[in-house]
Amino acid sequence: MNDEARTTAQPTGLDQVNLMDRYWRAANYISVGQIYLLDNPLLREPLKAEHVKPRLLGHWGTTPGLNFIYVHLNRVIRERGLEILFICGPGHGGPAMVANTWLEGTYSEIYPEIGQGEDGLRKLFRQFSFPGGVPSHAAPETPGSIHEGGELGYALVHAFGAAFDNPDLVVACVVGDGEAETGPLAAAWHSNKFLNPASDGAVLPILHLNGYKIANPTILARMDDVELRSLFAGYGYEPFFVEGHEPVPMHRMMATKLGTALDRIRFIQKRARASGWQGERPLWPMIVLRSPKGWTGPKEVDGKKVEDFWRSHQVPVSNARGNEGHRKILEDWMRSYEPEKLFDKSGRLLPELAALAPTGPKRMGATPYANGGLLKRDLVLPDWRSLALDVPRPGGAKAEATRILGSYLRHVMRLNADARNFRLMGPDETSSNRLDDVFEVTNRVWMQRIEPYDVHLSRDGRVMEVLSEHLCQGWLEGYLLTGRHGLFSCYEAFIHIVDSMVNQHAKWLKTSRELAWRKPIASLNYLLTSHVWRQDHNGFSHQDPGFADFVANKKADTVRLYFPPDANTLLWITEHCLKTYNRINVITAGKQPAPQWLSVEDAEAHCRAGAGAW
Amino acid sequence: MNDEARTTAQPTGLDQVNLMDRYWRAANYISVGQIYLLDNPLLREPLKAEHVKPRLLGHWGTTPGLNFIYVHLNRVIRERGLEILFICGPGHGGPAMVANTWLEGTYSEIYPEIGQGEDGLRKLFRQFSFPGGVPSHAAPETPGSIHEGGELGYALVHAFGAAFDNPDLVVACVVGDGEAETGPLAAAWHSNKFLNPASDGAVLPILHLNGYKIANPTILARMDDVELRSLFAGYGYEPFFVEGHEPVPMHRMMATKLGTALDRIRFIQKRARASGWQGERPLWPMIVLRSPKGWTGPKEVDGKKVEDFWRSHQVPVSNARGNEGHRKILEDWMRSYEPEKLFDKSGRLLPELAALAPTGPKRMGATPYANGGLLKRDLVLPDWRSLALDVPRPGGAKAEATRILGSYLRHVMRLNADARNFRLMGPDETSSNRLDDVFEVTNRVWMQRIEPYDVHLSRDGRVMEVLSEHLCQGWLEGYLLTGRHGLFSCYEAFIHIVDSMVNQHAKWLKTSRELAWRKPIASLNYLLTSHVWRQDHNGFSHQDPGFADFVANKKADTVRLYFPPDANTLLWITEHCLKTYNRINVITAGKQPAPQWLSVEDAEAHCRAGAGAW
Ligand SMILES: Cc1ncc(C[n+]2csc(CCOP(=O)(O)OP(=O)(O)O)c2C)c(N)n1
Ligand SMILES: Cc1ncc(C[n+]2csc(CCOP(=O)(O)OP(=O)(O)O)c2C)c(N)n1
Repeated sequence: MNDEARTTAQPTGLDQVNLMDRYWRAANYISVGQIYLLDNPLLREPLKAEHVKPRLLGHWGTTPGLNFIYVHLNRVIRERGLEILFICGPGHGGPAMVANTWLEGTYSEIYPEIGQGEDGLRKLFRQFSFPGGVPSHAAPETPGSIHEGGELGYALVHAFGAAFDNPDLVVACVVGDGEAETGPLAAAWHSNKFLNPASDGAVLPILHLNGYKIANPTILARMDDVELRSLFAGYGYEPFFVEGHEPVPMHRMMATKLGTALDRIRFIQKRARASGWQGERPLWPMIVLRSPKGWTGPKEVDGKKVEDFWRSHQVPVSNARGNEGHRKILEDWMRSYEPEKLFDKSGRLLPELAALAPTGPKRMGATPYANGGLLKRDLVLPDWRSLALDVPRPGGAKAEATRILGSYLRHVMRLNADARNFRLMGPDETSSNRLDDVFEVTNRVWMQRIEPYDVHLSRDGRVMEVLSEHLCQGWLEGYLLTGRHGLFSCYEAFIHIVDSMVNQHAKWLKTSRELAWRKPIASLNYLLTSHVWRQDHNGFSHQDPGFADFVANKKADTVRLYFPPDANTLLWITEHCLKTYNRINVITAGKQPAPQWLSVEDAEAHCRAGAGAW
Repeated sequence: MNDEARTTAQPTGLDQVNLMDRYWRAANYISVGQIYLLDNPLLREPLKAEHVKPRLLGHWGTTPGLNFIYVHLNRVIRERGLEILFICGPGHGGPAMVANTWLEGTYSEIYPEIGQGEDGLRKLFRQFSFPGGVPSHAAPETPGSIHEGGELGYALVHAFGAAFDNPDLVVACVVGDGEAETGPLAAAWHSNKFLNPASDGAVLPILHLNGYKIANPTILARMDDVELRSLFAGYGYEPFFVEGHEPVPMHRMMATKLGTALDRIRFIQKRARASGWQGERPLWPMIVLRSPKGWTGPKEVDGKKVEDFWRSHQVPVSNARGNEGHRKILEDWMRSYEPEKLFDKSGRLLPELAALAPTGPKRMGATPYANGGLLKRDLVLPDWRSLALDVPRPGGAKAEATRILGSYLRHVMRLNADARNFRLMGPDETSSNRLDDVFEVTNRVWMQRIEPYDVHLSRDGRVMEVLSEHLCQGWLEGYLLTGRHGLFSCYEAFIHIVDSMVNQHAKWLKTSRELAWRKPIASLNYLLTSHVWRQDHNGFSHQDPGFADFVANKKADTVRLYFPPDANTLLWITEHCLKTYNRINVITAGKQPAPQWLSVEDAEAHCRAGAGAW
């Protein structure tokens, strides 16, 4: 399973390799510049103390690897006309994202004050990680990103969320070997059991095996290759290793392996999209890039190992302003990229290098997939009144509110089946939460063996069930951020599992709202059931209404809480939430039989008023 | 790596198998009884409607597998004189834990009102999952449990936490194949990279591959065996498969494989504890038990598949009180265990079966490891005053508070080095949080390759760093629950990742406090740094003081929040926290250079008063 088949990709000529290497050096140069320089951006004069920032911040270690990957992705986008969305797991490698989007031009298009040329470069360097400037991490401000990356763990699950129902998309997802130690990431590899090669896009995981975290080696880096291959084979991937540190052979190897991986993807998709496909789950390719942390940076500083070690994680030379020796190391390091061979006199990237980047919306910084609001289509919603419960008088009917909602959702599913832009997520609780009605029109998606006695499993179901609240949340985030819609139904007590993810998503939304170029995305909607008042039998562990408190700490422009008292109010509120954007809506509702209070008209009046007495 | 070597364990004779099978049937019988029966506990008369509970609750599906494992563990405890701690990942299988601890006698010893014999059995059945009775999940009330199990995901990480520094302990950890889908569990397999076979105990994971969750198949169950073996080989385990459904061959296979697994553990430990051990990480054994969900229960109900399917997850026959056909199924099912061959006239387990259980504290329900307070020894603490910072007047010194704390912790490490009962956990942030001083006296534990240029890595370090807040939290919980001490240092913004675990631990502590037989355990102590006011450079994703709000929602008898304003108050508070028990202490402190305010005396006065003006 593990042997790497000969590629059908074209071998890459030395000219091409040299061009790519120069492009890579340009990206590395601009990354280092952001971390260190206040002025003298092209090193036209010898580096002086006052050219160096007084407070040095940023993460160098991961950056050269990210730049390396980016230039290779640029190549395959051009060569193959691919749509690639780049997910930067090591989001702390913000300098790489900024450098590359500046090089390809998207950065200056979005932020015209940071132009191309020397002056723009100076500003680009200055603003990095400055209060009021750009964040040191990939963030909403970063062109081409749907992924914050500050809190590690969610790269892969976001990547899969983005790929679902985007058959023409390849999501290239860089996963840090440190990030791979987190729970959410460890679980996310299994997302391939839920991705349909016919109707979904592809995820190409690129494990960035640079060996170290902040101050430790990583688990994966110190496993032997047999174990590493076993692990990924076990997860259902075919790993292609790109290992080394000499630039030229590394470029060649990366070009070859990346080509082969993309050939595999094309082949898998072709077969799955042809008639006669039996629905087998394919063995998806992945890349393992084993390269030095802080690659091409200083080998040693003050007699201590830096390159290929964790000391390169942040700022490898710490006192470049105050200490002449350090400044010399920095200058030598930056000059090693030979900026004079990369930029013209005005400080623009030389044309033969600029020609390596894709153009227009194919640029990873400009892809509409990373600005999901551009692609978002409103859901077609049924008239909830026609599905409402007949409540002749307050208390005059008994019903399970969420069951009524299930029938509403069935219609949402049906009306948007062709658009393929609505999914329902849950940790194996869709039935328990009485939403079964949706199974009249769709199934649970399942790419593994299906037995004749299985119920509502199919290759193209739109309900996603996995026993991981992290995966439910992360898939949905990725799905929404690329312009689609969804609902996550969960037991109230366990939703705290994703507190931290909700936090980060709320921050993303808040910041995005302030960026005119980021178009609004659909809201993240929760349906919480099995709430505290009805959990006596499951015991104390299942009792916790604290999520409402947790969420209520956030600003009302981002977060809304709803406690519909009965079925008809639940319908009204759900419809309302499905129409909102850029919010987090938390609906808490009962699933047990309970008296019903409000007729259609009363429910509507109650909800519009936001409260009511009855 | 995967081939299963011939066992050195003794083959198990048919008599022994038959006895074990009857013991298993007794446990199954008592499990079903808890879910269903109000009266007629030994089925001395035909089953009538009024014998059946009006509201049926509980989880049958996982229970027979748990019972099967328990009886086999009983055997090896007796045969080999082992100390085994049982971690019941599928904690919803509460009936199994209760049944087995009743059978072995511990239940009646702890709860004398639930005696042995028919009357005790009747009460045992009645109280199960009744308001005011016993929870349907493993819980603090459950003898032999350190693990709640309501919120799935933490079985394996608790198991490792329990095994660290307990060289004589084998932790048998049942992991549901559903639970295995969660992030925390997926990450926890790698805990073997931090367990030292010489000075720690062993964890024997038993994957309970019964195929289904609540209403879905599980990911692991539908992978082919090649992938499954690859996955666990990749995680660093040697899996032994026990597969089937016929009781007799299954008992034989389980006896053999379990014996072999324990032989492996003995061999690994022997080698590691002999001179000349080079510190290699061993390949630890694990068991994969592939058996039907709801094994031995009704095959079909109302024409629908139940055994070996998810329909057996909770209550397989739902209307046994109201529907005669259902009641017949229940009665046949219970009688299939032949209670008359298991219990004597008074309703006690027959002596030849009772003899299968271990005795005294070797019984898994009675092991002191599951009641950590019994084993807890107080930490030896240095005099914090001697380590305090000289602060001549308010503002008269500048220091990094956590660095001073590091020197205090170094002394704590040193003073308790021989007791081996204190560990420091963190997601690779110990140095970043300026606690480096501890590395003067200990290292980071690391069971993988160590390079000459690595820093402070060793096989027996007491600092545990992994990029998973879930693992840090779960290891520490397991460590504390088995009677030891620790501190978890973390960036404030990311501690929300474990909100839900903190929740569950707080509930555990609250309930335990009400159980006289549960002895107090050491508090769970957090040191949160990089707090919001100093995170401007890392950006918005790293800013969040919300954990304090989150925790403050809990009762003050369980949770305490501390915001020491400077180094000396931090020392006082840390000492204080390390002496408390049954609490969750959250200390938020600065790591950046900051003015110092309080001298030793002033700090002490300030902290004792709980506040101060200066
Ligand atoms: C959940 C979480 N815990 C801790 C951190 C602090 N942190 C920032 S970078 C880093 C190491 C990341 O290592 P890796 O993913 O391998 O990235 P790389 O080595 O390429 O920088 C850590 C622990 C974080 N960002 N997120
Ligand atoms: C974190 C979490 N999410 C959801 C649930 C709801 N739940 C209870 S049992 C269960 C299925 C468990 O499956 P498995 O671990 O395989 O146990 P078994 O099949 O042996 O019962 C689920 C999803 C839960 N208990 N915890």
